[in-house]
Amino acid sequence: MPRIAYVNGRYVPHADAAVHIEDRGYQFADGVYEVVTVHGGHLVDEAGHVDRLDRSLRELSMAWPIGRRSLGLIMRELVRRNAVSDGMLYMQVSRGVAPRDFAFPTATATSLVMTVRRANLSSNQRVEQGVRVITIPDIRWKRRDIKSVSLLPQVLGKQKAREAGAFEAWQTDENGHVTEGCSSNAWIVTKDGVLTTRQPNHLILKGITRGSIMALAQKEGLHFEERPFSVEEAYDAQEAFLTSATTYALPIVQIDDRMIGDGRPGPMTMRLRDLYWRYATES
Amino acid sequence: MPRIAYVNGRYVPHADAAVHIEDRGYQFADGVYEVVTVHGGHLVDEAGHVDRLDRSLRELSMAWPIGRRSLGLIMRELVRRNAVSDGMLYMQVSRGVAPRDFAFPTATATSLVMTVRRANLSSNQRVEQGVRVITIPDIRWKRRDIKSVSLLPQVLGKQKAREAGAFEAWQTDENGHVTEGCSSNAWIVTKDGVLTTRQPNHLILKGITRGSIMALAQKEGLHFEERPFSVEEAYDAQEAFLTSATTYALPIVQIDDRMIGDGRPGPMTMRLRDLYWRYATES
Repeated sequence: MPRIAYVNGRYVPHADAAVHIEDRGYQFADGVYEVVTVHGGHLVDEAGHVDRLDRSLRELSMAWPIGRRSLGLIMRELVRRNAVSDGMLYMQVSRGVAPRDFAFPTATATSLVMTVRRANLSSNQRVEQGVRVITIPDIRWKRRDIKSVSLLPQVLGKQKAREAGAFEAWQTDENGHVTEGCSSNAWIVTKDGVLTTRQPNHLILKGITRGSIMALAQKEGLHFEERPFSVEEAYDAQEAFLTSATTYALPIVQIDDRMIGDGRPGPMTMRLRDLYWRYATES
Repeated sequence: MPRIAYVNGRYVPHADAAVHIEDRGYQFADGVYEVVTVHGGHLVDEAGHVDRLDRSLRELSMAWPIGRRSLGLIMRELVRRNAVSDGMLYMQVSRGVAPRDFAFPTATATSLVMTVRRANLSSNQRVEQGVRVITIPDIRWKRRDIKSVSLLPQVLGKQKAREAGAFEAWQTDENGHVTEGCSSNAWIVTKDGVLTTRQPNHLILKGITRGSIMALAQKEGLHFEERPFSVEEAYDAQEAFLTSATTYALPIVQIDDRMIGDGRPGPMTMRLRDLYWRYATES
């Protein structure tokens, strides 16, 4: 069965899925996106992702390409056509095709592109052994709350991580505090056992998985704090982990050259992962 | 005659010019670009633009899509096929098409896309009357020396300018100093008659037109300084102007709500514009 993508109203073979070279997503990074996990055929945290898409579009004064309800139908149809049970759905909205000019074009329809691919979500080596992250300076722009495709700094950060044999790079602000990973939110369980992650504002993306895990932690009555933490504090933490739509909660056992805790995935991390797994399965 | 674009080895009708939706230029802004002016059929400052393209590619560890000599041939062929005498050539190189993953793909060929369009370069209302700029905070990432397509902040800045009835927005750093415009470099002639523009480092793009005009100014023996200047200093300047490949040197007569000089294009600006015009014509 050939892989199928959705491009501006049409379901097309993935190999033929194309956008015009003057699509503003290509020339200006003038677009936003979401990644939604497909878990047992269901879209995990769908409402949260679509709400955030709506917010990103509003922040950039970009029109919805289609109605919210139609978007939901297309997401399901694309999952069905690709017969994906576990995997991820990627959708991108750009300001559309127009002769190249920085300011917004008028009367141009926004573009909508969507793909789905299979992925192994279940327990794997990364979860069992934990991953390593490095820390790098955060060089991104100042509106990181908008999930735009202006991702070049994150590309460079992830490449640095890979070259260092790490899974992710935690970005740090000028005060030595961690902002977030290049495609995930950063969490620690402090020396004193407090679950800690940075509060959302313009400096980080408000992760959807982050929000769901926070809600689950609160329901469990876990001691919880939203505040910036330093790299030093992370080195000394009992546990560290990252969250994202595609990794859920993923244990971190090393930050730079420092082993975290006893070098094995932490119990609170694994508990939150299990809770999220159940939530994703039942949603 | 239909407009022709160049896309990865083929000359195609502009309307059909497309890239794959998984081109990293589209999904990650993982690409760089150059705009070269076509003046009387010639490419202005061609070597400078291609040198800067080379630098951008190297800074991002991105391979050349084709040889430099082939690039020059394609640029000329595209100008010829579109029968453009005065206009601009746009070229974009991205890291190519690969399954979506932040870190660099291996064994993926970079993409090359090129378009040419007509434009009126000669004297016009903007030059005769001068333009207005507004000032806005510079919210961009910290590698502005790389001419990447990660242009969303500039898009938003230019849109703000347009909504304010201005031609350009000058971005300002946390010290109240002007970095540069959203698609141009910023210049003033100070109260004391010194031609002044910010020195290039990671905080601004090293404009090619900027460099050529600087060389022309030096040849003329004009008193010249490379340093940051504040918005206040710009308000009080004798003259202000901007430079870019497509505008050459363009006089500014108003910054925010402050009239510059006597509110008419300044003599040093117009002298530099004339010098550059001659240089472009003769190159």
